Amino acid sequence: MASVMNIEKLLALAVFSLTVISSVSHKSWAEEIPLPVKVLVAYHSLTGNTERMAEAVVEGAKSVPGTIVVLKRVGQVTAEDLFSSDAVIVGSPVYWSNMSGEVKTFFDNWQFKFGIFPEFKMKNKVGAAFATGGQISSGKEVTMLTILAAMLGNQMIVVSGGGAFGASATTEGDSAGIDEKELTNAKALGQRVADVAKLISRSSSH
Amino acid sequence: MASVMNIEKLLALAVFSLTVISSVSHKSWAEEIPLPVKVLVAYHSLTGNTERMAEAVVEGAKSVPGTIVVLKRVGQVTAEDLFSSDAVIVGSPVYWSNMSGEVKTFFDNWQFKFGIFPEFKMKNKVGAAFATGGQISSGKEVTMLTILAAMLGNQMIVVSGGGAFGASATTEGDSAGIDEKELTNAKALGQRVADVAKLISRSSSH
Amino acid sequence: MASVMNIEKLLALAVFSLTVISSVSHKSWAEEIPLPVKVLVAYHSLTGNTERMAEAVVEGAKSVPGTIVVLKRVGQVTAEDLFSSDAVIVGSPVYWSNMSGEVKTFFDNWQFKFGIFPEFKMKNKVGAAFATGGQISSGKEVTMLTILAAMLGNQMIVVSGGGAFGASATTEGDSAGIDEKELTNAKALGQRVADVAKLISRSSSH
Amino acid sequence: MASVMNIEKLLALAVFSLTVISSVSHKSWAEEIPLPVKVLVAYHSLTGNTERMAEAVVEGAKSVPGTIVVLKRVGQVTAEDLFSSDAVIVGSPVYWSNMSGEVKTFFDNWQFKFGIFPEFKMKNKVGAAFATGGQISSGKEVTMLTILAAMLGNQMIVVSGGGAFGASATTEGDSAGIDEKELTNAKALGQRVADVAKLISRSSSH
Repeated sequence: MASVMNIEKLLALAVFSLTVISSVSHKSWAEEIPLPVKVLVAYHSLTGNTERMAEAVVEGAKSVPGTIVVLKRVGQVTAEDLFSSDAVIVGSPVYWSNMSGEVKTFFDNWQFKFGIFPEFKMKNKVGAAFATGGQISSGKEVTMLTILAAMLGNQMIVVSGGGAFGASATTEGDSAGIDEKELTNAKALGQRVADVAKLISRSSSH
Repeated sequence: MASVMNIEKLLALAVFSLTVISSVSHKSWAEEIPLPVKVLVAYHSLTGNTERMAEAVVEGAKSVPGTIVVLKRVGQVTAEDLFSSDAVIVGSPVYWSNMSGEVKTFFDNWQFKFGIFPEFKMKNKVGAAFATGGQISSGKEVTMLTILAAMLGNQMIVVSGGGAFGASATTEGDSAGIDEKELTNAKALGQRVADVAKLISRSSSH
Repeated sequence: MASVMNIEKLLALAVFSLTVISSVSHKSWAEEIPLPVKVLVAYHSLTGNTERMAEAVVEGAKSVPGTIVVLKRVGQVTAEDLFSSDAVIVGSPVYWSNMSGEVKTFFDNWQFKFGIFPEFKMKNKVGAAFATGGQISSGKEVTMLTILAAMLGNQMIVVSGGGAFGASATTEGDSAGIDEKELTNAKALGQRVADVAKLISRSSSH
Repeated sequence: MASVMNIEKLLALAVFSLTVISSVSHKSWAEEIPLPVKVLVAYHSLTGNTERMAEAVVEGAKSVPGTIVVLKRVGQVTAEDLFSSDAVIVGSPVYWSNMSGEVKTFFDNWQFKFGIFPEFKMKNKVGAAFATGGQISSGKEVTMLTILAAMLGNQMIVVSGGGAFGASATTEGDSAGIDEKELTNAKALGQRVADVAKLISRSSSH
């Protein structure tokens, strides 16, 4: 009898425990121990300007708790890098009012090398852009918009940050190189993307 | 016997508890009783073509359970319509390779009339676009991209659907009016936006 | 005899005169007394920034000998203004990453009010754009590109000047208002357009 | 008799003079023996679709009397090809809503290999674009517009033709490959560019 009672108590305890665990589980786990989101920052840089911006984007993304950030030159990015990421931020210098040939070829390789189409393997990942260019209003907007357009064609979820289309820097003329304000915008972009990726990743994983 | 009865009762209770826990727990609640998301479809139409597309976008959005859809001409949209929405889908005919003056004025009014700036009151709402135009490659892409650009400047989260930039229809020439394939794309856009809005709304509401 | 001599003299004079007139006529007339070309500068301005740029564009165009320049707000432009011009330069403030509703409506009116389609009445006229915007990389490029796109759809001949897409000014932040460099770019745009309009007008009139 | 002889001589001289004047004068020379203009058509093609369009563009340009046309793949174009041309028409397949990496790299090489900057060696040459893409409204406009943007940055004089931004073809779906209407548009583009190049070349040669 005693043992039966013990079984009864144990079962009661089990039921109680499950109830408590269950009711507490989801909310706290999601809010206090967030799933890590992985952000890939891919860039091309000849002079080092876009690289400096890329590093600031990384810094901004890392400032969001639970974010893993991978920084790579576009030529180094693998299919695994792309598919394992929750968000991809692509940066390019402006060459003739558009992303550089290296960055364009990187996007072409999504299809030719990485085979992301026709399954739309990048679907619902977050996408964003940054750009550096010699002059004001000489292609940074178009560079960012066409990066975002490539991402939209991949059914990615696209955001700006640190500027109307993304973060950008003017690297010649009165404001040579990358200044503090531009780095701040790059950080804001990284943070923004990590925030949105977290929002979507958390919801998707339920 | 009593103890056996108790064990049976306890087991029954355990099963019941697990059922209740399950039905209340986040996963099932989110999937079976989703939070309603509100999608605003705003359009301008002179000939009725863009209106037909708008109606198909509405149909697509409504096909996602728990979605409330509001359909309005851009001139009828109020600040309350905008601020209470989780997603906004804007459609325009192509006039000279861009959205119509009516749609552009609608966006200008976000600031001049509705005062969404500088607080970025549309932040994190989902945005998308659709367009109709007489000819192929004569402005539908630019119309959709510039609608999305306006949304990105508002810190909205932007998606495509039913096409690389959104849903579109060619209304003159060999394919006059709106055909079935174009309506299917419009529905796909509505559904895509509702899906993403739900994803983000669910996560944000935690 | 005397009269015959006189006839000889007169004929000689006639031949000489024709030779002189002819040899001098075409070249000098085209190069030294150029056909006047008419440049229309049309703009929208709320704060006065785009107006200041417009005035500098006018100044630049006037610096080219034989150029007649008309400066008007977009709402004041008539069909006659458009059709009698050899070149049209349109300027807009950036509202949500695009030209203002006023400027967009102006372009829509080319069709709705002025009936330039389907005869393409603006064909072969020179077109160009300028823009002012609060921030760097927040829509000035898109504004100018979409103005140019509207012109291309009208079979106009499009040029830049004073910048990669046209002249532009950043009016807030560190560089509030319109500075000297921006005015210089606006003048360069006006001059560039007048130069190209002259080139084309001269050739067309042969 | 002497005076009659003189009159005859003078008349003969007058006729001779007028003939000489006429043959030398600009008008007749320019209209009857036009300066040849050189049009370079440069393209990238993987499947042959863009190549077929390129050939039709060539055909259209050749239909304008006094036009010399050179057809080359972008990778084959030399600095001499560029600098000796009066007009350049660039064609690309759409890869992810933009020109292909090959075409983008071609433009980058204008600077890196051919050294056209900072002297703006392409200034005042006529530029135009064509594109092929699998779907309607999935990047052909952006591809053409960004080709034109690269040309505008080079201070070229830009035109459309055979469509609002240039000639384009949809190569998959209901309208697989290149159809007659699309070839007609490609020819119209070639003709348009040759016409404008002639207009400008003739005037510049004064």
